[in-house]
Amino acid sequence: MLNFNFYNPTHVVFGKDRLSEIATLIPENAKVLIIYGGGSIKKFGTFDKIVKALESFEIFEFGGIEPNPQLQTCIKAAEYIKENNIDFILAVGGGSVLDATKYISIAAKYYGNDYKSLIKHGFTPVPVTEAVPFGTVLTLPATGSEMNAFSVISDETGKYAVYSPLFFPKFSFLDPTLTYTLPKKQVANGIVDTFIHVVEQYITFPVDAKFQDRAAEGILQTLVEIGDYTLNNPEDYDARANFMWCATMALNGVVGSGVPQDWSTHMIGHEFTAKFDIDHGRTLAMVLPSLLRERKENKKAKLLQYAERVWGITEGNADERIEAAIQQTENFFNSLGVPTKISDYSVKKEELKDIITQLESHGMVALSETGDLTLDVAERILENAY
Amino acid sequence: MLNFNFYNPTHVVFGKDRLSEIATLIPENAKVLIIYGGGSIKKFGTFDKIVKALESFEIFEFGGIEPNPQLQTCIKAAEYIKENNIDFILAVGGGSVLDATKYISIAAKYYGNDYKSLIKHGFTPVPVTEAVPFGTVLTLPATGSEMNAFSVISDETGKYAVYSPLFFPKFSFLDPTLTYTLPKKQVANGIVDTFIHVVEQYITFPVDAKFQDRAAEGILQTLVEIGDYTLNNPEDYDARANFMWCATMALNGVVGSGVPQDWSTHMIGHEFTAKFDIDHGRTLAMVLPSLLRERKENKKAKLLQYAERVWGITEGNADERIEAAIQQTENFFNSLGVPTKISDYSVKKEELKDIITQLESHGMVALSETGDLTLDVAERILENAY
Repeated sequence: MLNFNFYNPTHVVFGKDRLSEIATLIPENAKVLIIYGGGSIKKFGTFDKIVKALESFEIFEFGGIEPNPQLQTCIKAAEYIKENNIDFILAVGGGSVLDATKYISIAAKYYGNDYKSLIKHGFTPVPVTEAVPFGTVLTLPATGSEMNAFSVISDETGKYAVYSPLFFPKFSFLDPTLTYTLPKKQVANGIVDTFIHVVEQYITFPVDAKFQDRAAEGILQTLVEIGDYTLNNPEDYDARANFMWCATMALNGVVGSGVPQDWSTHMIGHEFTAKFDIDHGRTLAMVLPSLLRERKENKKAKLLQYAERVWGITEGNADERIEAAIQQTENFFNSLGVPTKISDYSVKKEELKDIITQLESHGMVALSETGDLTLDVAERILENAY
Repeated sequence: MLNFNFYNPTHVVFGKDRLSEIATLIPENAKVLIIYGGGSIKKFGTFDKIVKALESFEIFEFGGIEPNPQLQTCIKAAEYIKENNIDFILAVGGGSVLDATKYISIAAKYYGNDYKSLIKHGFTPVPVTEAVPFGTVLTLPATGSEMNAFSVISDETGKYAVYSPLFFPKFSFLDPTLTYTLPKKQVANGIVDTFIHVVEQYITFPVDAKFQDRAAEGILQTLVEIGDYTLNNPEDYDARANFMWCATMALNGVVGSGVPQDWSTHMIGHEFTAKFDIDHGRTLAMVLPSLLRERKENKKAKLLQYAERVWGITEGNADERIEAAIQQTENFFNSLGVPTKISDYSVKKEELKDIITQLESHGMVALSETGDLTLDVAERILENAY
């Protein structure tokens, strides 16, 4: 097992009919800004419930956070916070709203003249010491942003991972019933995103981290078990609760502590979202199978463990078992309506080289758990994923 | 899945050769009190390493915390803290030292005249608002105290669970190499204690909490896999690392969130420790098998799941599979040198009624996940456990 630090102070409030408790977790007399996305929280009554829960506070609102939140929108929100002396932010939405809120929380305490500089530090903490405190109400399980310190912000040059210990929400409300009205496609994307978050931390090389492996497999097994069912039975509470909790546990440190991590599928996928505006979860599904095939020698031991423990595959030689596990993975994504080939999207084969160029321009030239997924390897992965 | 709150702000620093980092986590210029137990940390050099790591601080020490820490010892430590204006406590030891430190942290900020009143609140938070901040260096994996808000304190009338949100350590150092010198018996007790912590949160009734079940089974499977091996290969790092992390994960909220919890084996076991001074882990091992047999109808679905997923038992009718799983559990404990019958200890059969009397005097008259493990049921459990 590798050395690790585990620190996650977010207070999770999980379950149905608990939004009235929000007020107990916000400092008294705070001026509260509610940040949200496209307005579905108003359409389905969530906004009204929250406003009622916060009736003892002075409330402000800032809507219009887009999927893949844009730096310029976040800057507007940060300036709005400065103008109105907001004390606390409540993010209501999915990963995009939560990620935007994280960036906004530090930008609202930033008094320099280069907001863009705050998104260019990768996995090194942003050099800031203060943030507006914030909590979240999650409506779309997928990114794990509700219980971690990561954010992804986009500008005209690409998608950027941003990290700060200040990015842990003070609290996150996870109410599975708020997901009942989600479009099927978003739920499918969220299941795939969650699945691949785990894969990035699990299908690497073995370091004898037994509990972490079992926990990772537990999330993958659960997603396989409930995926198709929850898509077609959106109001089955327990299925949604299991999906929601798995999405959180997939990226809050529990399965990733003390193990190598890959993240190359994410880094390549981000470039497809940046260039072609393909949903994040879908970009992952179209890269992963080809990546696993390309890297099957590097990942051999874990792929065999994955085949056996997640898919029950024990027949055949090592190559056959690995290929069967990758095919099962593809079948699973396909069963959710998520394609697994780049050619299933409006991407021309000759545009694949643009993705390589973007990876290079973003410094993504030595990806993976061993740092040897170079651009030529990435190119082969994309060609075979087409 | 049941509604739940998950909140655990302890910062875990896991791995070898990291004690030098302690100083970075203690406030500058703090007067630091090191609390420890019987002195083995001095014998094996841990104390010296810590003193070196803290050379920039003014250090005080308080040793002599006994197993099943006694209220009177804790009060002495609290008064020592008041006299010396200590700012920060570093607990170095196993669960007893950590549990004692938790009580001491609030007692040192208590200015009333009834220290005993602080241990008589069960699982209701102790009504205090201030504690001396503390961190821990764990030397014996077992109780999970390093990453939770529970403590168990004894006085002449019994053992008492004490709970406060102030009881989360600020940080806990988990270095598997510090466990290399532990006596075999303590390691065996710790494995059994960890195993039964999980059982108390897992073998109840099903609520379709899929990840929590998989995580619980993952810990049990890991303990079965490494138990005998780590006893006999104390310096195999990974085996100890897996044991240590499982002990922490067993009782930090991850496996217990959103599921029913039992804890009757613990409540009954505590009475045996209080009366006969039998090691905590051993009291659990002698109660659990009989309790599972007595309660096999109440726990049927989860016992069958346990049989299949942890022990791979799929043959036979339901009763046979359950009995086989309980026998496997007994065999596992026995393989670690831990007996599973009360008669294996110096307890006379006629003294069992004293345990029932103690349970009654401590208000433990309706135990278990369904509150229907009454004293007559407890009596049958003990008779069959003899």
